[in-house]
Amino acid sequence: MLKEDYLHRLKSPRQVYIDSKLISDVSTEPSFQGAIDSIAEFYQLQESQPELFTYEENGKNYHISTLAPKTREELARKRKSYKAIADLSFGMLGRTPDFINSALAAMATNSHVLGAGQYADFSSNAVKYYDRCRNENLFVGHGAINPQIDRGIQLGLQENKYCGVRSISHDSKGMTVRGAKMIVTLAPIADELLVFNMPGLISGDEDFALAFAVPVTASGVKLICRKPLNHNGYNLLDHPISNLFDESDAYMVFEDVFIPWSDVFVFRDVEKSNSFYDKTRIRNHNGHQGIVRGLAKAELLTGVAIELANKMGLGSFLNVQEQLGEMTSSLELVRGAILLAEEDATLENDLLNPSIHAIQAIRYHFPKWYHRMVNIIQSLSAGSMLAVPHHGDFENKNGPILKEALRNKNISAEDRCFLLNLAWDLSGDGFGQRQMVYEKYHAGDPIRIAAMHYSNYPKGELFKHLDNIKRIYHDSLC
Amino acid sequence: MLKEDYLHRLKSPRQVYIDSKLISDVSTEPSFQGAIDSIAEFYQLQESQPELFTYEENGKNYHISTLAPKTREELARKRKSYKAIADLSFGMLGRTPDFINSALAAMATNSHVLGAGQYADFSSNAVKYYDRCRNENLFVGHGAINPQIDRGIQLGLQENKYCGVRSISHDSKGMTVRGAKMIVTLAPIADELLVFNMPGLISGDEDFALAFAVPVTASGVKLICRKPLNHNGYNLLDHPISNLFDESDAYMVFEDVFIPWSDVFVFRDVEKSNSFYDKTRIRNHNGHQGIVRGLAKAELLTGVAIELANKMGLGSFLNVQEQLGEMTSSLELVRGAILLAEEDATLENDLLNPSIHAIQAIRYHFPKWYHRMVNIIQSLSAGSMLAVPHHGDFENKNGPILKEALRNKNISAEDRCFLLNLAWDLSGDGFGQRQMVYEKYHAGDPIRIAAMHYSNYPKGELFKHLDNIKRIYHDSLC
Amino acid sequence: MLKEDYLHRLKSPRQVYIDSKLISDVSTEPSFQGAIDSIAEFYQLQESQPELFTYEENGKNYHISTLAPKTREELARKRKSYKAIADLSFGMLGRTPDFINSALAAMATNSHVLGAGQYADFSSNAVKYYDRCRNENLFVGHGAINPQIDRGIQLGLQENKYCGVRSISHDSKGMTVRGAKMIVTLAPIADELLVFNMPGLISGDEDFALAFAVPVTASGVKLICRKPLNHNGYNLLDHPISNLFDESDAYMVFEDVFIPWSDVFVFRDVEKSNSFYDKTRIRNHNGHQGIVRGLAKAELLTGVAIELANKMGLGSFLNVQEQLGEMTSSLELVRGAILLAEEDATLENDLLNPSIHAIQAIRYHFPKWYHRMVNIIQSLSAGSMLAVPHHGDFENKNGPILKEALRNKNISAEDRCFLLNLAWDLSGDGFGQRQMVYEKYHAGDPIRIAAMHYSNYPKGELFKHLDNIKRIYHDSLC
Amino acid sequence: MLKEDYLHRLKSPRQVYIDSKLISDVSTEPSFQGAIDSIAEFYQLQESQPELFTYEENGKNYHISTLAPKTREELARKRKSYKAIADLSFGMLGRTPDFINSALAAMATNSHVLGAGQYADFSSNAVKYYDRCRNENLFVGHGAINPQIDRGIQLGLQENKYCGVRSISHDSKGMTVRGAKMIVTLAPIADELLVFNMPGLISGDEDFALAFAVPVTASGVKLICRKPLNHNGYNLLDHPISNLFDESDAYMVFEDVFIPWSDVFVFRDVEKSNSFYDKTRIRNHNGHQGIVRGLAKAELLTGVAIELANKMGLGSFLNVQEQLGEMTSSLELVRGAILLAEEDATLENDLLNPSIHAIQAIRYHFPKWYHRMVNIIQSLSAGSMLAVPHHGDFENKNGPILKEALRNKNISAEDRCFLLNLAWDLSGDGFGQRQMVYEKYHAGDPIRIAAMHYSNYPKGELFKHLDNIKRIYHDSLC
Repeated sequence: MLKEDYLHRLKSPRQVYIDSKLISDVSTEPSFQGAIDSIAEFYQLQESQPELFTYEENGKNYHISTLAPKTREELARKRKSYKAIADLSFGMLGRTPDFINSALAAMATNSHVLGAGQYADFSSNAVKYYDRCRNENLFVGHGAINPQIDRGIQLGLQENKYCGVRSISHDSKGMTVRGAKMIVTLAPIADELLVFNMPGLISGDEDFALAFAVPVTASGVKLICRKPLNHNGYNLLDHPISNLFDESDAYMVFEDVFIPWSDVFVFRDVEKSNSFYDKTRIRNHNGHQGIVRGLAKAELLTGVAIELANKMGLGSFLNVQEQLGEMTSSLELVRGAILLAEEDATLENDLLNPSIHAIQAIRYHFPKWYHRMVNIIQSLSAGSMLAVPHHGDFENKNGPILKEALRNKNISAEDRCFLLNLAWDLSGDGFGQRQMVYEKYHAGDPIRIAAMHYSNYPKGELFKHLDNIKRIYHDSLC
Repeated sequence: MLKEDYLHRLKSPRQVYIDSKLISDVSTEPSFQGAIDSIAEFYQLQESQPELFTYEENGKNYHISTLAPKTREELARKRKSYKAIADLSFGMLGRTPDFINSALAAMATNSHVLGAGQYADFSSNAVKYYDRCRNENLFVGHGAINPQIDRGIQLGLQENKYCGVRSISHDSKGMTVRGAKMIVTLAPIADELLVFNMPGLISGDEDFALAFAVPVTASGVKLICRKPLNHNGYNLLDHPISNLFDESDAYMVFEDVFIPWSDVFVFRDVEKSNSFYDKTRIRNHNGHQGIVRGLAKAELLTGVAIELANKMGLGSFLNVQEQLGEMTSSLELVRGAILLAEEDATLENDLLNPSIHAIQAIRYHFPKWYHRMVNIIQSLSAGSMLAVPHHGDFENKNGPILKEALRNKNISAEDRCFLLNLAWDLSGDGFGQRQMVYEKYHAGDPIRIAAMHYSNYPKGELFKHLDNIKRIYHDSLC
Repeated sequence: MLKEDYLHRLKSPRQVYIDSKLISDVSTEPSFQGAIDSIAEFYQLQESQPELFTYEENGKNYHISTLAPKTREELARKRKSYKAIADLSFGMLGRTPDFINSALAAMATNSHVLGAGQYADFSSNAVKYYDRCRNENLFVGHGAINPQIDRGIQLGLQENKYCGVRSISHDSKGMTVRGAKMIVTLAPIADELLVFNMPGLISGDEDFALAFAVPVTASGVKLICRKPLNHNGYNLLDHPISNLFDESDAYMVFEDVFIPWSDVFVFRDVEKSNSFYDKTRIRNHNGHQGIVRGLAKAELLTGVAIELANKMGLGSFLNVQEQLGEMTSSLELVRGAILLAEEDATLENDLLNPSIHAIQAIRYHFPKWYHRMVNIIQSLSAGSMLAVPHHGDFENKNGPILKEALRNKNISAEDRCFLLNLAWDLSGDGFGQRQMVYEKYHAGDPIRIAAMHYSNYPKGELFKHLDNIKRIYHDSLC
Repeated sequence: MLKEDYLHRLKSPRQVYIDSKLISDVSTEPSFQGAIDSIAEFYQLQESQPELFTYEENGKNYHISTLAPKTREELARKRKSYKAIADLSFGMLGRTPDFINSALAAMATNSHVLGAGQYADFSSNAVKYYDRCRNENLFVGHGAINPQIDRGIQLGLQENKYCGVRSISHDSKGMTVRGAKMIVTLAPIADELLVFNMPGLISGDEDFALAFAVPVTASGVKLICRKPLNHNGYNLLDHPISNLFDESDAYMVFEDVFIPWSDVFVFRDVEKSNSFYDKTRIRNHNGHQGIVRGLAKAELLTGVAIELANKMGLGSFLNVQEQLGEMTSSLELVRGAILLAEEDATLENDLLNPSIHAIQAIRYHFPKWYHRMVNIIQSLSAGSMLAVPHHGDFENKNGPILKEALRNKNISAEDRCFLLNLAWDLSGDGFGQRQMVYEKYHAGDPIRIAAMHYSNYPKGELFKHLDNIKRIYHDSLC
């Protein structure tokens, strides 16, 4: 029923453009099918396995991802659900509903950070919005990244006013916004969007210093998708994963969209805008989901690399074994960091926040490992990836020869092609490269993640060592 | 007329499969159009600029790439023509006719390496084949890479006999071959194919130890193309380069193809097969063309990165400047190595062979630099590459907003999208990744290239230093 | 008293050579002073802080490092003691007594692996040896690495019989051994040495397939130290850490040393020799101590890098902040992996073994991070490390100028020199490079560590993903 | 006689401090012996091989390094002499007399850049100084690097006035300078010093904007050496190269040194100070010497690595062969870049300047390759470097065993120790790391070298490609 409800809501008209065509009914658009199926399965699991995917509060069952965790056991429960959900798409769908659900739970618990303004009690808005979303099991996506029109200039000074979303007028009922966000992932098939800025605004950016929610179907919201990365005319033998899980990234335009005060969380307030992601601890909970999801992805790539080595006759080469060991050992480090994030979690306002130090540590290192995994798969497949025929060649008169010519003692010709195509999808195809770019940038510029890690890191233990060695020196002088 | 001749020859029926369909007329196949246009331009230049693209011998003009150079000036002339030809496709077409032309000139000059056999004078065959090809201005492609069915086992012991091309019978007229080669690039639109093995065969591989020529149109030759990497339904704004220069890599099957002795150069001879590429100095001359072509490619990527930095507001960041300087300095190193290859060229049998040490040095380092260039373009474009609408969105009702929203003071919206799409094609799209894989592997496994460089390198100067430092030590003992 | 006992035992005559001189009394040798002080402090802490450094068994207190842990709490207790001990030398002493203590506990618990032979019950020997060592609080070092005389040939086939330690004769009382081990770290100041091989022996190596214990003072045991890396004539301002913690690596020669059967654990048994390190789980417990100790070292380097950035005016550069963040984030990953090693520990024969997958994961990655840390410190200090005067220059007539000329607003001239000298010791001096080489190789060749990680890694989760994606494909065909 | 003259001049008293002691006679200081011998050999070669090391002008013979080259042949002659001189010290002495000689030739030829001031004709000073130095065969060192007291603040605003050398007063006879320079390499054994700034001063730095010459023996010049990196008490078996070629880096203090106008080239002129190195083309000619010298160094390391592989039984491992091939191929790239620097040299004011683009390209890449070479040597030697006894151990009673125990079939025990010690000196010892730091920074911060390369690089060819691809797109629209 949850699943059916979602599919029903998907029918609501919205302005979605793919390949420059307005899609009247996103629910039937082939490019979205794989993602829609995964979201539908998300809801189905919520109903079929409540013990794993729900918690109870005041007599009602909610999705576990909306839980505001207070204990390590609850964090661990959330982690397990994140993993099970990520496994559905092998981690390729970055923005399944649990992602923003975990953010909403943090935002509501720490809603005091948002305070109140002339027209609205933002804190109370946040709590109500959270309650509504988990009650109605809405799929909330989000738009956070401002189009990088000129990366050398602050938002407020850019000539081009579509460099973000700004309020152009307001009255007692609400505000009207205009502008754009980019890489609004999965937005076309979401119910609602949470729109905000990552920290970094400065004085002068007030017009853009907003946070609010808006239904995808709202008047004036326009979603212009990038070129899809799935491949029409090819089946899952040809493109085993890129034809399944391309989560559309949309460029979202607000053409004078009216937002009632009840859905506004930050209004023209640079400091609050900068607090929105960090001080509410959304970053911690989003990050927790993110690294668990990343683990699923890295597991798939490691499995593919091992399968390639085994099936292509490469398993006995020491340098190949080292590369595979680099991959398996990286998996362990991800697992360790997840554990540390939970072990070092801190309770604040009755919310147990996974350690941001552990999360950002993996956020900085993971893209490099993922990049290596992609390169290793490329080097194991090498030219063979580029020598795979079309699936139809197995059925036309080339079939008998190809079935003979492309097999080896470990694997049939079709399975070998499937494996090499999977390797290509993950490492050579636009789909795989988009996944790599996503891992690298989805939580912000890695250079700044590292800089922030350094600046926030508790340095007591480090300075203790410095003090000790200075003391030994000074003692030696006496 | 040369151009028209080529286009006319293209009409000859051949067995070419794309997307599992037999292409009756390759000359009209959209996936090949960009490559065909470039080859046609190759012939046109030969006629329109003979001073640059031809040389005279015995009163007849031939394409400069077929010249067997004897002087540094001739090597330099060849280099300039390679560059001009590569510039036509920005280095993206790796197998333009000059590639094998340079090989044929070396093979003919050093044909004594091939000797004679029971049925044929292979040496004389090589000279005649060269003469015919340059006389008739044929486009000769080549098939050298054996399908890597099981990389842990030698050819002769593999169960699957399609792991290479072998002679299954022979008589006084010729031999009959069966088997396969992979990554036969541009083969569908070539006239002839030169089929041989890279060095590395060992005793027991005799059946596969062949080298011969065969017309693309010969009976029993079948070319099964990998999935094309161009994008139907998108124009050059959407895919500025991947829709132009996808040089098809074909999987080539020989179904009992008869080869007359006149076209055979190596017959069941492991040692000769191993000599074919190296001892004839094909490797030197192919390598010379290859690094010159690579330079064109690297220049395009460097230009794109600089343009990105300039237009996206990144030019003032020191770390971006360092990355761009890494790219421009790599270009210089390529240029230096080309110069060295010519300066250190050695005359042998009246043929001036570019230095293999310089060529293989760049062959080892260039793929790493190219990889870095691709990564730098990815990091400069980052998410913005994934926020580009379809070209049609500029013409539908989204047009006016997008033209406003996606421009900045340095660049119009459409030009910005063109630039980002070009960045994507080169760094994220399957086309760009295939180009990267091509650079890494087209001349063999880089690990083995390095191992060979070490083993062949003249070490006199190095050991002189060792001797000197030992001498100083021994002198100190007295 | 434990400390005094140790210092007293140190007086026992042993054959130790430094700089080709026989050291009659190691306890007064300046090169050993820093290490001796740390070991003495190790014993002192055992007495002064029993709650932290001891456990009780059958009414007696033993050093916590000798505990055979059965619970996670016990593992955590051991970890805390490892860290406190490592902090004494900032992790620079790799072979403090807790290292082999942890091994002995594993060896005794899993002594069944060793079995019995014709002359002795090796299993019972192991238990008794463990009991004696913990009872008497002996400092047991170890010799495991065979001199790499010819790395291309197996031990048993090498012409040079000093490529390891072999039994040359035996009788009913014991065996006589001859040969050599290398990098026997801290051996000159130890009480006992545990001699064994890392896994990797093969058939034909029987003579060398031994494991036994021997007192450092035994007749025929000779320790020839490498050139010390401390600096005579310089004080702790000049060499803040290299003059403190150079843990001598000795080349150990056995000139026909008699080993009674009671001290033998493996006798001419290739399989048992290979089991000694792994199947007894010594590797797990040694590895646990090793990564905890490594953390202390990495913390010092990170602290030094941060101090350099702060004091040299580099703190505001984004690229410097990224480098510091790379370091702090690496620390987190080490902490996560330690946690994982304990969390995933498995109980076997009543011994809780830290997860080898987590340990070897960090063992593979840590040397790369440590290398980066060293490089970052080099790049932050750059030329300034090479512009530091002798400490005496602050006291001669250069003093007044230098005190003025070398300070800045953040730091006095002497403190700046101390900091730069500390940076040099850790990143440029022979001491620092030896520490780096130690991290890279002390647990074996990193290439083989990775290969082993891959081969032992539980791959169920990885293959589950592969099965799922194959299933989706096959379902799609229906 | 030139040699004797130099050794005689060395006797002149100067203020040189080593290990805080004033050295009364530098000519007998053991730490300088290796460098002095090399400089003496420099002069000896000038006399013994005039055809190689001198040129004639107006009937007089000068050292070839002082030649202002006008032709490629002259550049090539200079290059050959640089190499022969560098070979004397295996490239380890970075600042032999030819280094500044090549600079003086450029400075004199382009002296118009310096212009004239109120008190002096700087241009004419430059010419006269050059003439005097080449006439008298003086060894001119230089001090260019300002102590990096606070790297975040410009010179003129630093509180600490020893952050450079500034003029504190002047009159009609000359100026008086006070301050410091760091890393004044080989200064203690030079005759003269050329003092200037690298480009980068800005308005407000006028006091420091100077260039001048000063005798090492001038009153008020004080040279405080860093701790020597040679090893007293060890011979050339123990330290084969670090005990030979430690070129002292001095911290140079000017305590109110008077400089007559005749020796001043820039006076309180920021623009001229910034032009001094670049616009006179000193950078080009210094750079030319520098990369040729670097080649000698890289050749030694490559030779050592090959010898290690051959003698330690590693030569048959493919991964080792790859590492050695990486080294030999890097040598080729250096050779190519040197050739390109000469081929692309441009004639300006009758001086043929090697291409700065080629030089800076190698300047950016070479330190990375050199770093790799050091790492490869470390990994080939691994623990064995740390298991080498003192040379005296071969002579005491350990001798017989060691001679047996440390040899293998390819190499004697002593030669093996020599080789491993050489490996350590180059890769682990302070000497080797200082050499690495020198390569990385001696021509400036590599990040800025790259940034400068990008900004100065002729981009015409790159933009031509961009124009072409845009044109193709625009043509496609028609």
